[in-house]
Amino acid sequence: MELIVESLNITTGGSRIAILSEQSASLLDVHSSDRIRITYGSQQMIAIANIAANFPQNRIGLYDETASALGVKEDETVNVQLAPLPESLFNVRAKLRGERLREKDIVTIVNDVVERHLSTVEIAAFLTALSIHGLSASENEALSRAMVATGKTLSFGEAPILDKHSVGGIPGDKTSMLVVPIVAAAGFTIPKTSSRAITSPAGTADRVETLCPVNLSINEIKDVVSKTNGCLVWGGALELAPADDLFIQVEYPLGIDPMLLPSILSKKKAIGATHVVIDIPTGMGAKIKTRTEAYTLASDFVDLGKRLDLNIQCALTFGDQPLGCSIGPALEAKEALTTLMGGGPPDLREKAVSLAGMLFEMVGVENGRAKAEDMLDSGKAEKKMREIIGAQGGNPAVKPDELPVGAEKAEVRSEHAGKVIWLSTEDIVRIAREAGAPKEKGAGIVLHAKLGETVHKDEVLFEVYAERSSKLASALEIAGQLLPIVLTKKPAEKMILDQVPEKLSHEKSFMLDR
Amino acid sequence: MELIVESLNITTGGSRIAILSEQSASLLDVHSSDRIRITYGSQQMIAIANIAANFPQNRIGLYDETASALGVKEDETVNVQLAPLPESLFNVRAKLRGERLREKDIVTIVNDVVERHLSTVEIAAFLTALSIHGLSASENEALSRAMVATGKTLSFGEAPILDKHSVGGIPGDKTSMLVVPIVAAAGFTIPKTSSRAITSPAGTADRVETLCPVNLSINEIKDVVSKTNGCLVWGGALELAPADDLFIQVEYPLGIDPMLLPSILSKKKAIGATHVVIDIPTGMGAKIKTRTEAYTLASDFVDLGKRLDLNIQCALTFGDQPLGCSIGPALEAKEALTTLMGGGPPDLREKAVSLAGMLFEMVGVENGRAKAEDMLDSGKAEKKMREIIGAQGGNPAVKPDELPVGAEKAEVRSEHAGKVIWLSTEDIVRIAREAGAPKEKGAGIVLHAKLGETVHKDEVLFEVYAERSSKLASALEIAGQLLPIVLTKKPAEKMILDQVPEKLSHEKSFMLDR
Repeated sequence: MELIVESLNITTGGSRIAILSEQSASLLDVHSSDRIRITYGSQQMIAIANIAANFPQNRIGLYDETASALGVKEDETVNVQLAPLPESLFNVRAKLRGERLREKDIVTIVNDVVERHLSTVEIAAFLTALSIHGLSASENEALSRAMVATGKTLSFGEAPILDKHSVGGIPGDKTSMLVVPIVAAAGFTIPKTSSRAITSPAGTADRVETLCPVNLSINEIKDVVSKTNGCLVWGGALELAPADDLFIQVEYPLGIDPMLLPSILSKKKAIGATHVVIDIPTGMGAKIKTRTEAYTLASDFVDLGKRLDLNIQCALTFGDQPLGCSIGPALEAKEALTTLMGGGPPDLREKAVSLAGMLFEMVGVENGRAKAEDMLDSGKAEKKMREIIGAQGGNPAVKPDELPVGAEKAEVRSEHAGKVIWLSTEDIVRIAREAGAPKEKGAGIVLHAKLGETVHKDEVLFEVYAERSSKLASALEIAGQLLPIVLTKKPAEKMILDQVPEKLSHEKSFMLDR
Repeated sequence: MELIVESLNITTGGSRIAILSEQSASLLDVHSSDRIRITYGSQQMIAIANIAANFPQNRIGLYDETASALGVKEDETVNVQLAPLPESLFNVRAKLRGERLREKDIVTIVNDVVERHLSTVEIAAFLTALSIHGLSASENEALSRAMVATGKTLSFGEAPILDKHSVGGIPGDKTSMLVVPIVAAAGFTIPKTSSRAITSPAGTADRVETLCPVNLSINEIKDVVSKTNGCLVWGGALELAPADDLFIQVEYPLGIDPMLLPSILSKKKAIGATHVVIDIPTGMGAKIKTRTEAYTLASDFVDLGKRLDLNIQCALTFGDQPLGCSIGPALEAKEALTTLMGGGPPDLREKAVSLAGMLFEMVGVENGRAKAEDMLDSGKAEKKMREIIGAQGGNPAVKPDELPVGAEKAEVRSEHAGKVIWLSTEDIVRIAREAGAPKEKGAGIVLHAKLGETVHKDEVLFEVYAERSSKLASALEIAGQLLPIVLTKKPAEKMILDQVPEKLSHEKSFMLDR
């Protein structure tokens, strides 16, 4: 059927959608969400049909991406046909029925996700089925390989290329900002890409951005790494695994994360990493709550690493409370810099030195931990961090006190004396976000009491920082309701966690920051 | 944030979507698929945000439904805020984790589906999780009740109100066109709503439409039923269970049908039925392949019926081949009319008399089958059908030969003699659809050989009807490839059904016609 193009002048962010009138759809036997083949001269493309009630009968509405992919303009004529269901959709349906998918089945799905031949409804069903049925080792491998194959890859020359990744969930975890300069200072290559926060108060990219630009092109990254051996950049726009970026968009409203393993390792593979330490924070405050879960995940990582020819070591790390004392982009960058300069909280230093030490031993350094301590204590790691900041376009001489933390500030004090027995990371996250983090980079929290510490009556438990007084006020209001830090008093006071059927809101918090 | 309305002049078929620029979305902390609250004067609504790269920064794009629900016009200003996640989404997420939902959880979901507060991605995930985890009896009940509560309901006066439904899958199943007039002729009320074909060559609404209009309003239906005791109308536009209509749209590309029970029984409840016979065709050619599956489904129907105060009897019917000989809207209407007039194929007559007999016995008639036979043989059922045709606006005197079957026609003959041992309903469906059914109402197939019958060499196996010669040619081409009717010859000739890993396309055909 010949139809006249109507440009909608809207960019949809990639999805290939075309609008048909009810009459044209009926003549073409097209139902909503069917695929159509649009032909313009020698150009062809597949788009997903949306059917509009009052759309002009002889026209097809094209969003910008679709029109420009075809090279067609307003009022030109295209030929439109119903397209057959793609092979990938039959593979999605097989997964819905619980069948195992073979490598070539998965390749069709990942290709069609990237080519936008699968709709978000179909992707959502696929991810839901993966989330419920789980993935086999071969499915994880095939997904990882297919996501690398459909994205860009980087090469930083000779192996080893080192990397570090946390599965996340611990507020205040700025370890990468120490591990990268420690490793790079020892002469190893560590091109670290990080994410921005989606559900947390700060991602590594948000933290580093208070020191220097992080939104670098692939060529700029190569340049920084060739000068300094390392980098700390945002990975989101590099298209290392574009399928994964599309999967994450669909996972976000659903609160599911079935592709954790291939999502992480495909990106490591794409930047050419050979040796990777995976940090699995484990505990009440982390994404992974129990050691059993953590060991299963760790062995899955190691197994998938072997299949992908990646050398992987996992660290199960203490995950019952935030890391260090500061939460929020600028506050965390300040704490990281202070720790590189010899100060800082002991748990942050300990974690950074341990993980960097693991990486050193993976590439043959004896007593890796001592090497990591040496890099830190000698000032070489700080020097390296300043080189990286400078190479990425920041001020290499920046002092911790110059970082723009929020001007609006208040203290929350303890109502009685006691020992800290509970510190809710979830509540800390809510308060920090309410204060404005991560969007307002100066916003956040500084903890003055951590697990096991003894607190006097009226002593400061934590400080809240904000850039605007209204944000500070609402963060303090929530802090008053939540009581994120619980002190020993009457142990039996709160034995009932929840009541059924009158359930309180006990939705598990969902973390999707990689 | 204040934004200026940009009317997109597109009707999306109900979904409430608003387009924001990347800049506005970032300022509002809105991610794609987040919900926003739009306020215009005293009007408020929730819409799902789509983020467009090059959209004017100070504007919000509204589709027609959204703009008219708010009563806002181009260039007017609205206030836009990030809306909190709806309670229903937490309930969807609970189902994704495999939790049982309580009635009030399900009410939030169904309400938010109808109000368009849940996106199609979220609905797809919900349906996928239901499809994998299955539904408990209470979940089926709660879904049915919630779908009735959010739709329109009909009342036809005093009980009993009779109804009949097939779970479908058998091509040529025009039984409703006999059961309705048989039951109505005996003085009982039977307001039958039917569907159009989505994946089959004809739905009951498509068949009846070759005799009279089926797209009646609720008032017109009441009128027809008060005159004739029965009707045969299309249920699709009556909004009896609008949530179900939205669920079906999402199920269609996914090839899943987790809500079969609540979908069917909510619509029976909405039209006020008190006694319902459910036909469960069982066999190789049907949606339900085995007796085990059929008995499970039947007892689920009876159980759900009890919970909804509906008296239900299920019939497991022979489902290894098409019913009667004709497949396609006009061909089937012709066969139904012929059968009402005393002719027609014996299996169709047998099935209609049996199901109508079950309904009679459910409402206290002794020897219901004899009563049904009497209605048919006396000509009362035919007379009643003609009354219904007339009341719905058709020609009550219509003769079978006047029905507009396709002028293009060809025979497919057997290449050798033998007994029919296999008749693929799936292949028959493909050929009939290729010939143009259900869109071209005269297209279809007439079978001349059915299971167990002996065929001579060169005898006609089936005829193909089409309205256009091109359609006839392509139907015949497919018929030649598929060989839908298999005769005994060398039993061992085709022992291998499929090969692994070189799988042939063995996607289960998906039926979603109710």
